[in-house]
Order: sequence, then C-alpha cells, then structure tokens
Amino acid sequence: MAIELSRRVDFPMVDMAKVVYYPEYFDLAHRFFEESWDEICGIDYATLTQNMHVGFPAVRTEANHVAPLRYGDVITCKMWIKSVGDTSVTWRYQFSNVDGLCWDATVVTVCCDLRTFAKQTVPAELAAALRNCSED
Amino acid sequence: MAIELSRRVDFPMVDMAKVVYYPEYFDLAHRFFEESWDEICGIDYATLTQNMHVGFPAVRTEANHVAPLRYGDVITCKMWIKSVGDTSVTWRYQFSNVDGLCWDATVVTVCCDLRTFAKQTVPAELAAALRNCSED
Amino acid sequence: MAIELSRRVDFPMVDMAKVVYYPEYFDLAHRFFEESWDEICGIDYATLTQNMHVGFPAVRTEANHVAPLRYGDVITCKMWIKSVGDTSVTWRYQFSNVDGLCWDATVVTVCCDLRTFAKQTVPAELAAALRNCSED
Amino acid sequence: MAIELSRRVDFPMVDMAKVVYYPEYFDLAHRFFEESWDEICGIDYATLTQNMHVGFPAVRTEANHVAPLRYGDVITCKMWIKSVGDTSVTWRYQFSNVDGLCWDATVVTVCCDLRTFAKQTVPAELAAALRNCSED
Repeated sequence: MAIELSRRVDFPMVDMAKVVYYPEYFDLAHRFFEESWDEICGIDYATLTQNMHVGFPAVRTEANHVAPLRYGDVITCKMWIKSVGDTSVTWRYQFSNVDGLCWDATVVTVCCDLRTFAKQTVPAELAAALRNCSED
Repeated sequence: MAIELSRRVDFPMVDMAKVVYYPEYFDLAHRFFEESWDEICGIDYATLTQNMHVGFPAVRTEANHVAPLRYGDVITCKMWIKSVGDTSVTWRYQFSNVDGLCWDATVVTVCCDLRTFAKQTVPAELAAALRNCSED
Repeated sequence: MAIELSRRVDFPMVDMAKVVYYPEYFDLAHRFFEESWDEICGIDYATLTQNMHVGFPAVRTEANHVAPLRYGDVITCKMWIKSVGDTSVTWRYQFSNVDGLCWDATVVTVCCDLRTFAKQTVPAELAAALRNCSED
Repeated sequence: MAIELSRRVDFPMVDMAKVVYYPEYFDLAHRFFEESWDEICGIDYATLTQNMHVGFPAVRTEANHVAPLRYGDVITCKMWIKSVGDTSVTWRYQFSNVDGLCWDATVVTVCCDLRTFAKQTVPAELAAALRNCSED
C-alpha cells in the first residue's frame, strides 16, 4: 500500500517568485525517499547506506509540476513503488497541498554497491517489502 | 545555435556517496538557464523577472542521469531550445565532464506574468531569439 | 522558558567528509527559528511575514562548531531569546545529538518592514512573548 | 596579499524577501574558500581533501551582515588569512557589491585528517603559503 509522509514548506525552499523553487521538489522527494525506508522496509537509509553499503541512485526522473507550493503550505507526499526489477526500483511521488495535487513524479533508481557504484541485484528481502508498497 | 556554459563542481554539491546529489542537477540547470538569457536573448534574467515581471517556471522535467559528476569536475553544459510554442518554451540541457555525457534533460517552461502567475504569450522578440538557439 | 524542537539529519545536509556541511547549521537554525514563532508568540512566521510584512533578518551571527553532526543523528535544538531591544532580538541556539552539544550560536536579528527593509520597533505583543522565552 | 574572487548572485540564493538568504553567505564563503586554495597555495581543494586527506572544517564563525545582497548583484569577495596557528587557520572574508561592503566574516578552521577527524599540524608548505596571504 502507498505510504503518506508530510513536511511543511520551509522559508528557504521558496524563491523570489514566492513559490517553491522547482529543484526543491526533487530535494524534497529525496528526503521523503529516505524517510520511507523505515516504513516500507523496516530499515533506515542511514543503516542501509553506511553499514550495508547499499544505495539507490536515481538514473531517470520525470515530473509534472501541476501547481505551485507556497510558504505556509504543508506538503502531503503519497508515495509508492511502481515496479521492482532485478537491479532497479521505480518510485512514484505525488505531492499535494490543501488545494490538491501539486507535483507528480517518477524516479527510477538503480541498486548499487556504494563503495564501487557497481549495479547489484536488489536484495531479496528489500525487493519483497518494496513490492508490497504498491499504489493500492 | 546551441550555447555552452560551464561551472565547476563545488564541494556542497557533492553528497556522502561522493557524487553530485541528484537534485543539484536541476539546480545547476536553473543556474545555467539564468545565465543563458543574456547570451540567447541579450537580456539578463534579473531584468526580465524584476523589471518586466516575466518568468518561465518549469511545468515538466525529464532527465536521464547517465554518469555521475564528482568533486573536481568541471561541468560543460550544452543547452538549446527544442521548441517555442505560444506560451511555452522547451529547453534541452546536456551536462558533460571530461569523460563524456553525464546528464541529459528536457525542461518545459511556461511564460508567466510573475505578479499573477497567469500564462501569457511569449513576447515576440524573445520568441525569435529563443528559436534561433536551436541545437545546430 | 527555552523551547526545544528537533529534526533529523537528512542526507543532503551531509557532505563528502560525512559530516553536516557547516552552512547547513545556519539553514537549520533558520528553519527552527521559523518553527519557533508559533510556540513562542502564537503566530506563524508565514503570517508574520506575508500578512503583517514584519520580518527579522539576521545582522550578526556567531557560532561555535563544537562537534560534528552525522547522517542518522536527530538534532535537538534548544533555543531561547537572550535579549529584546527596541528594534532587535537576539536568539540563542544549541544543537545537540545523543552525545551532547554540537553547535552553539547567537544570532542578532533586526525587526524590519519587509516591504522597505526599514528598521522598526518590535511590536509590543511580540516583544512580551519573546522576553518570556528566556533560557530558564 | 589578500585575494579577490567574484561570483554572481544566482536566483536560488535569493529568498522571498528578495535578498540573499543569510545561510547562503556561509555557503558562498565556503565556495570562495575552495576556490582560493589554488591561488593561495597552488593546490586545489579536491586534491587536498581527496588525495592528501587533509581538510579544514570550521570550528568558529563570526559575521556581520552589513547590507543585503540582491538578485542581479555581482559579489566581490576579498579574502585573506588572519592567522595560522599550529593546527588552526583563521580566514577573513569581505563581500561587497557595487554599493560597498555587505558582509564581513571570520571563520576559524582546524586542520584535520579527514579519515579520522583528528586534529593535525598544518603542513609546513601550506602554512607558509597561507601566511603570505595577509590582508595587505
């Protein structure tokens, strides 16, 4: 099942045009991604990366910026796993504020050994937990 | 004709995995975008946004992260305009280091009045200059 | 009385040396500062800045970086008001992780009309609430 | 002799109040610091940190925010070394725009082995070059 996380829009995310600066959406997505590991796989990303040396760098990103986020908004991030391949995991993100959908993105990540950046098979226990986090 | 801009990879762009943190690519693209206005249209983005109240927020982004950028690299950004519509402009970015292509992205922007965020027709003199900045 | 807020160290705060990049401490302090308004004065900073046009830009900062923060840490920020002058407010921040004090800072801010950046007297009701937030 | 470096104010440095967000000054100082190594010591910071495993984390910062920087400004950074101790180096930064001094800061750094974060004596050849970079 999809999970939901939320964060407030902090002042430094907002640009002179009084909307969240668009690269911040990817930064936010990454912070939600980190936070999601504990909920989805029961392991935190710090342990995964630092003790197990496993990471998931992004290799492809695609996003629709539907409506601006503004200072004072709270972002609700619905996120789920679209697919798990042998070495890749595809993440979906939908950011909403009280008025509805603001940002809709897909990020393809590849499982790597962070010491060498060599691709590796997604560890079986992670793959199973990730597959469980489908949209519905 | 496509233009070329370059920047060094600064220390704060690099993450714990010793590669440029992926949202930084979009931030870099935006900084190149800003810098390009003077070269492409003969107007700087500060004047465009602050005096003419015209801006080009991103509405769609698509990127392939082909190879990592690392600390010590110099990024060469080749950029050009893929298309100019009535209210939209599509930008192409290719980041390379000495080893070749690292990042390949397309960003669709919409011409807005920054005071109201209402879409507006791309001003004719900008549209002509932007169209001139084709890939070849 | 001093207040306490906390945040996790997110991946993008950490640099190649595997410690929180030092300008991030000021960024974090600003985010705690924003969050503190509701608790200290019963008004959120978005309302203060956007509806009342009152802001508190920093004019002097002083910090001791006592010990590094690392990925996986949770930061506890103890913060209080050291003094409230006619137009200035001095904030104190102490960041700790489970091992103890990491960062100890003083930030002097000046009350401004954000439309003109002219100094102004700290509004009386804010000054009273701020003075209540002393160290003990 | 002091050195001078310069950078443009990029759009993402500027906040909703239309001035450079204050933690960005420290980030900028760090980027100038990195750039300065080549000019002051004839070695780039990437080589120093990655090949020699020597780094200079900040342990104390002090800054006066004299006047705001705005979008469209070019920042001139005058920087010099105030003192070199056995294990510490004190840096001075002055940021100006066309209207004069904007930011005046002192950053004390400690020479460390980046693999262990243990303090170490500033290597003699670096210390000599750093001492040469005095204010006048």
